[in-house]
Amino acid sequence: MIRVSVNGYGTIGKRVAEAIMLQPDMELVGVSKTSPNMEALVAQSKGIKIFSPDESSKKFEESGIKISGNIEDMIKYSDIIVDATPNGVGAQYKTLYEKYEKRAIFQGGEKPNVADVSFSALCNYDEALNKKYVRVVSCNTTALLRTICTLSKLGKIDKVRATIVRRAADPKEFKKGPINALVLDPATIPSHHAKDVNSVLKDLDIITSAIIAPTTLMHVHLLNVTFKQQIDKEDIVSIFLNTPRIVMVSSRSKISSTAEIIEVARDLGKMRNDIREVVVFEDSIYTKGSEVFLTYAVHQESIVVPENIDAIRAINGISADESIKITNTSQGISGGYII
Amino acid sequence: MIRVSVNGYGTIGKRVAEAIMLQPDMELVGVSKTSPNMEALVAQSKGIKIFSPDESSKKFEESGIKISGNIEDMIKYSDIIVDATPNGVGAQYKTLYEKYEKRAIFQGGEKPNVADVSFSALCNYDEALNKKYVRVVSCNTTALLRTICTLSKLGKIDKVRATIVRRAADPKEFKKGPINALVLDPATIPSHHAKDVNSVLKDLDIITSAIIAPTTLMHVHLLNVTFKQQIDKEDIVSIFLNTPRIVMVSSRSKISSTAEIIEVARDLGKMRNDIREVVVFEDSIYTKGSEVFLTYAVHQESIVVPENIDAIRAINGISADESIKITNTSQGISGGYII
Repeated sequence: MIRVSVNGYGTIGKRVAEAIMLQPDMELVGVSKTSPNMEALVAQSKGIKIFSPDESSKKFEESGIKISGNIEDMIKYSDIIVDATPNGVGAQYKTLYEKYEKRAIFQGGEKPNVADVSFSALCNYDEALNKKYVRVVSCNTTALLRTICTLSKLGKIDKVRATIVRRAADPKEFKKGPINALVLDPATIPSHHAKDVNSVLKDLDIITSAIIAPTTLMHVHLLNVTFKQQIDKEDIVSIFLNTPRIVMVSSRSKISSTAEIIEVARDLGKMRNDIREVVVFEDSIYTKGSEVFLTYAVHQESIVVPENIDAIRAINGISADESIKITNTSQGISGGYII
Repeated sequence: MIRVSVNGYGTIGKRVAEAIMLQPDMELVGVSKTSPNMEALVAQSKGIKIFSPDESSKKFEESGIKISGNIEDMIKYSDIIVDATPNGVGAQYKTLYEKYEKRAIFQGGEKPNVADVSFSALCNYDEALNKKYVRVVSCNTTALLRTICTLSKLGKIDKVRATIVRRAADPKEFKKGPINALVLDPATIPSHHAKDVNSVLKDLDIITSAIIAPTTLMHVHLLNVTFKQQIDKEDIVSIFLNTPRIVMVSSRSKISSTAEIIEVARDLGKMRNDIREVVVFEDSIYTKGSEVFLTYAVHQESIVVPENIDAIRAINGISADESIKITNTSQGISGGYII
């Protein structure tokens, strides 16, 4: 059993913690929380051990939430730490992971140089094998990489041009967004997403631009991929249908919005309406000679969860095929059509 | 077994259909759908029989979705029909229910005179016993009635004054709202909600005003209830904690928004993040002499589901205590604190 703890119990941390509990080869040591709020109450109700900084212990005591030690205790008890602290905070914690000689997974909000390798399971799993520090790229970059690496099996890619329409805030937030505007993110092109893709696919010619829209549900990417040769639409459909971390929206479902995708996830009883797959609109796939156009949606809250689980196994020297298979089974990821 | 069909498979219809499937004393005959869209695909994937108008059968055939007959067939096979068609359409269908001498439940979007009685399980269950046509009041009215009838156990209510802040649209909608505005609904006072409460509590002095806000998650009601005598806060807390169709948001959870309530529902794995209970903010309960102030949230998509199930049993002559108990158990409704 790989003993894993999750440092930071926000949107990503809570999902990764629950995913760890579902893995046959992992044990969740616990999670860290700095304040005894509703998410601490939820963790406690699920039987998850909570560790907190020493300065917070009094607050927890007052609110009647049991803590199992401080964050250094949690690190000591673990083989691997998944760092899901806010952007930039992971780099500060790295000194603590180093102090106890523990391996760690960082999220895409950290700079690439925090880790030995930036990671996307379908692109460069093997580069993370037995590494000490691995960084799982962000939700947008994870979606770009899954899609691009899947398409690259059909032929040599010449270049990728992509527009990213980002959700303004996560559903649970009540202090920011969605703002009543379209916001260039940033106004300069390329956006940082292209650079982040290049942290994994170093030689790819990719330019991205991004805009923030007033919605909370999902991101949407509009891709224009140019191959070195002509590509048939049916080959694209076929490879997407046979790649478990990608699901398709069929023409007959008449779905044309992120609202409907989330509604299907709710109707199917998916926990938290999470969708860990890239969701490609089948009707959007269009080819013109060597150019391919397509549109897909990205569930920003959950898409990186399987990659975090795979990264834990990669660090432990377990092969890509084996890890991806276990992760997909435990997470109900099976590809095909969403409905 | 009571054979029930659901006419109309939208936001309310799909939830009522699934709730029927969970009742030990009911059998779901099927649901009606007019177009073979994503919701039809979801119904099919759950093994729910679909009936459609004759004019739609070709569309279903083309899309490969099996239909089990037309809507008259569905009505014929049923003991009771839950009508969850759009506002005003239920009244048109009533002639069909009458033709086949079938009993029916209507929703709050129909006028009160469509049915023999307007229904709220905690207020006037017995009035619906053995009736032919029962109308379950709307989501907002259901919440008002549950709260008022529960408070009325503490003492005689002199008057209720309430502000209703409505969500602009449901989460699944992509053709309307939330608009970027606050909309008076309507500008004249009282709003229709007071009148709808009076369809059940005929003598209550109640005035409501309503405003629409740009959000999809939940409604919020701000109540000012004046009793004939002084009321203690602790008695209100106690009665709410002991009423299963009401849950409380505790002070220590630090929840102060509908976004956080929905996030808790997601974290707890509640199907579609539905919350069938009225969600009262404990901190909002404030008393001044005989006046009580309180604020609660209403999950517009699902709050009327238990009342629909109870109405089916009331029509069949089953007692309030027995029905409410079975409904609560099957729907996971247990009261107390939400977390």
